Amino acid sequence: MTDLDIAKKATPIHIADVAKKLGINPDALELYGKHKAKLPLSLIDKSKAERSHLILVSAISPTPAGEGKTTISIGLSEGLNQIGKKTTVVLREPSLGPVFGIKGGATGGGYAQVIPMEDINLHFTGDFSAIEKAHNLLSALIDNNIQSKTNSLGIDSRTVAWKRVMDVNDRSLRKIVIGLGGTGSGVPRESGFDITAASEIMAILCLSNNLTDLKKRLGNIFIGYTFDKKPIFARDLKAEGAMAVLLKDAIKPNLVQTLEGNPAIIHGGPFANIAQGTNTVIATKMGMSLSDYTVTEAGFGADLGAEKFLDIKCQSADLKPKVVVLTATIRALKYHGGAPLDDLKTPHTEALKKGLPNLEKHLENILQFQLTPVIAINKFITDSDEEIEVIKAFAKSKGVRVALAEVWAEGGKGAIDLANEVVAAVEENKSNFTPLYDWESDVQSKIETIATKIYGAAKVEYASRAKLDLKKIANLGLNQLPVCIAKTQKSLSDNPALIGRPSGFTITVREIEIAAGAGFLVPITGDMMRMPGLPAHPASETIDIDDNGTITGLF
Amino acid sequence: MTDLDIAKKATPIHIADVAKKLGINPDALELYGKHKAKLPLSLIDKSKAERSHLILVSAISPTPAGEGKTTISIGLSEGLNQIGKKTTVVLREPSLGPVFGIKGGATGGGYAQVIPMEDINLHFTGDFSAIEKAHNLLSALIDNNIQSKTNSLGIDSRTVAWKRVMDVNDRSLRKIVIGLGGTGSGVPRESGFDITAASEIMAILCLSNNLTDLKKRLGNIFIGYTFDKKPIFARDLKAEGAMAVLLKDAIKPNLVQTLEGNPAIIHGGPFANIAQGTNTVIATKMGMSLSDYTVTEAGFGADLGAEKFLDIKCQSADLKPKVVVLTATIRALKYHGGAPLDDLKTPHTEALKKGLPNLEKHLENILQFQLTPVIAINKFITDSDEEIEVIKAFAKSKGVRVALAEVWAEGGKGAIDLANEVVAAVEENKSNFTPLYDWESDVQSKIETIATKIYGAAKVEYASRAKLDLKKIANLGLNQLPVCIAKTQKSLSDNPALIGRPSGFTITVREIEIAAGAGFLVPITGDMMRMPGLPAHPASETIDIDDNGTITGLF
Repeated sequence: MTDLDIAKKATPIHIADVAKKLGINPDALELYGKHKAKLPLSLIDKSKAERSHLILVSAISPTPAGEGKTTISIGLSEGLNQIGKKTTVVLREPSLGPVFGIKGGATGGGYAQVIPMEDINLHFTGDFSAIEKAHNLLSALIDNNIQSKTNSLGIDSRTVAWKRVMDVNDRSLRKIVIGLGGTGSGVPRESGFDITAASEIMAILCLSNNLTDLKKRLGNIFIGYTFDKKPIFARDLKAEGAMAVLLKDAIKPNLVQTLEGNPAIIHGGPFANIAQGTNTVIATKMGMSLSDYTVTEAGFGADLGAEKFLDIKCQSADLKPKVVVLTATIRALKYHGGAPLDDLKTPHTEALKKGLPNLEKHLENILQFQLTPVIAINKFITDSDEEIEVIKAFAKSKGVRVALAEVWAEGGKGAIDLANEVVAAVEENKSNFTPLYDWESDVQSKIETIATKIYGAAKVEYASRAKLDLKKIANLGLNQLPVCIAKTQKSLSDNPALIGRPSGFTITVREIEIAAGAGFLVPITGDMMRMPGLPAHPASETIDIDDNGTITGLF
Repeated sequence: MTDLDIAKKATPIHIADVAKKLGINPDALELYGKHKAKLPLSLIDKSKAERSHLILVSAISPTPAGEGKTTISIGLSEGLNQIGKKTTVVLREPSLGPVFGIKGGATGGGYAQVIPMEDINLHFTGDFSAIEKAHNLLSALIDNNIQSKTNSLGIDSRTVAWKRVMDVNDRSLRKIVIGLGGTGSGVPRESGFDITAASEIMAILCLSNNLTDLKKRLGNIFIGYTFDKKPIFARDLKAEGAMAVLLKDAIKPNLVQTLEGNPAIIHGGPFANIAQGTNTVIATKMGMSLSDYTVTEAGFGADLGAEKFLDIKCQSADLKPKVVVLTATIRALKYHGGAPLDDLKTPHTEALKKGLPNLEKHLENILQFQLTPVIAINKFITDSDEEIEVIKAFAKSKGVRVALAEVWAEGGKGAIDLANEVVAAVEENKSNFTPLYDWESDVQSKIETIATKIYGAAKVEYASRAKLDLKKIANLGLNQLPVCIAKTQKSLSDNPALIGRPSGFTITVREIEIAAGAGFLVPITGDMMRMPGLPAHPASETIDIDDNGTITGLF
């Protein structure tokens, strides 16, 4: 059975009944059909949220073999509910564009899924579209101002880095020339489109605490300079009010359910390289206000997603996680140990042992934040008992809790061991969350702290463009912003080929982008793809719908 | 009080209670909050629909003074409900882009509005966004195929007329060059963006009877030619299934309510020049399945909106309207009679009399379709009794029913006279709807029939480009499609300066576009703006929202 088959066979309960499990009055819901609802921000309760246990699900460095972080997050949440802990899973919203490229949704898999999966993977409640509109309204206002004779701010169009966004995989829009067609149709300049998930508005929405905070951040978006070198922000175009109006519903978290009818909140989906890679602050606080345990995830490996979650999101929103679950698979660890991709199903304890240092480094990193890690082995049918014993022995040697999770095949039942380990780790109460660096320290020192302590680099070098950017940042008075390093997810280093646990390497910062609205700086250490393309035979070719509305070929 | 103030003061009933008035089981609704719902297509009932009376609201040629067609449609529906006729008003969805340019929504005015007006004017239920995504997915698939080495159809990119769309007023995107950035980022070519309402997908959705029909029309979209001159359609890219999946919810009509709690269905919003300018066929049939009277509107004056409604939509969907309400204002008629725009509030019976021939021509046109017209005078406080008497005498001389409507100030109460006239006209049963031309006649004869009989032209000329297009259409085997002439709305002629009732003029067809998916040809007789720009001081500058979600400055 495919994921879609399993999802379709499920008999979802009415979303009002899911809400009831969280003590929400059905009247407070903004329904989107029978199985989706938006939650009003008034349900966020600071003191209740402070008593909730926040569990972050992260992973080893991703490999082509797959780790299943979302599946583990959903399965763990089912498991916690099964052992009597009132739990909500809080996840990112998937992007629409990739759905028509390569098959595969982003709503978990097997018996650990959130539903309705077709809706969640398509337009859902319109949040991405709203972000797209707010982003592109600002783009239009910028070019309108460049065009204007009577209301001109004197923007030098060559300094504008703000592009446009579209949630479609469309490589032809990466680099374009706009404003052609004569004096009535704008001023010609170079520009381009990113995919919507890469929009700074996405990062902003996901870090905002409320509408006022959202508006302030929107106003802070840095646009470029005037011809006489004055910086221009979105507030100079009086854009933030209208943009916030477009986001008035997108700011409200979406309630759906897991296959076992437990609550799932899905809200926001920023990139995990150029942005923070985790759902909205509002969704996390909502989950924590409504349940005793809140399970959430952050994109890519712990060097990217978890580091940003902890240093940017948790500091910004005053969140204190209790446990970090590190997801690993035996296949992926063997890949890190040098086993070839087409031979990962064969038992191979030597490759596995050689791959363990990747897991070890991520474990050490979690401990640097003074947080308790728990290892979740996302079990595959091809895993041998001997291999499983190797990981268990490794965990024991490190004094770290470990559990096998069979959530893909068994749902919550397959995560009861993991749930018990997580609860035990929470109840031990050994975590004392401490961020890695002080936002007030200087930009280079923040970058170097992450590069050496988390990535394991020997040193950091700066390209000439990056050095100029450091000056620009200082001149704009933005030194105090945290750093959101854009790095390949495939390696702890900035070289995708260095799997396992590399050391002695240099991180090269090519340039540093300014996300003044989101409230972070983005040191770029490689080529970051912000607008994917479609394959020669896109998945769209086999996607169909019949007159009863039954979809085929999706996922 | 502004329109927004009035709309906010209203206490809307739950949309399930509105649905109950139409005999809809609340369980059949797909709720979008408490005041919006999508209706399943299964509620369409052919035999019930055939017994319903369809009333089309049209107007004289638009002037800068405004006519208020939507306001009259809503007010008339309230009035019909007040006199005991179970009535639904069926309208177009407004476009988002213009909201941030110049103040003004598209949900009626004063006490004749549909609510929730902020939602309807913003993202509503996501239909426009879905259309945008479906359109841009096809665009991406086209450029992906041009880029592809292994799956190439051999499309000659210079022949591709299919652009991209965005629901933002962004003049800089009108004419662009895409595919720059080297071999990995597409093949450079000229292209551009239209506003979403101008998308052929919008026209397609609005003419589709069901998902199967939608898919067929999507597959029929004409894209361009291969290098060896073979025509390429969307079906050659296997795009129609995925596009239909994106439109699976957008195809369902949206139920909202009027200020007086009566049902309103709002669905689809194509342009009235390059497209048919009226809501979806599905929405019209839904309204007719659920109520005794169905009031709907078509864009611009009766020469454009009503002609297309009758010749394209009604023929395509087998609809037979009973009465056409021609909306006029004394101000607008004085403008047609030569009175200056800044002096329309002063009583001026001579100018009014000089303007009446515009109304007269539209009346004659309605009679050509063997339909009964009723004149609705949308009353303004500045109208003098003497002026009102002039129109009434004119109507009497023509044997046409007329009524004053004070719907802006009084809602349904102000439309009781109009409602009674409409009911009387329906009950007289004199209409015998007959389209103006046979779709099977040749393209030039279809164009000439409309130009001479409806516009009042002496003759039609074809530019050399248009002559080539006629050959292309014949070669593609598309001669049997109806024609949707794109002409200025300001005049019955193709010259916007010729107000009143011009005669002896020549219509010049510059080119003929092919909307093979929608199922019509578009002879172009002037410059059609498909991507508006923003003014120097856009409305967005004064739009704001506070932390309670209260919006200001919108409309």
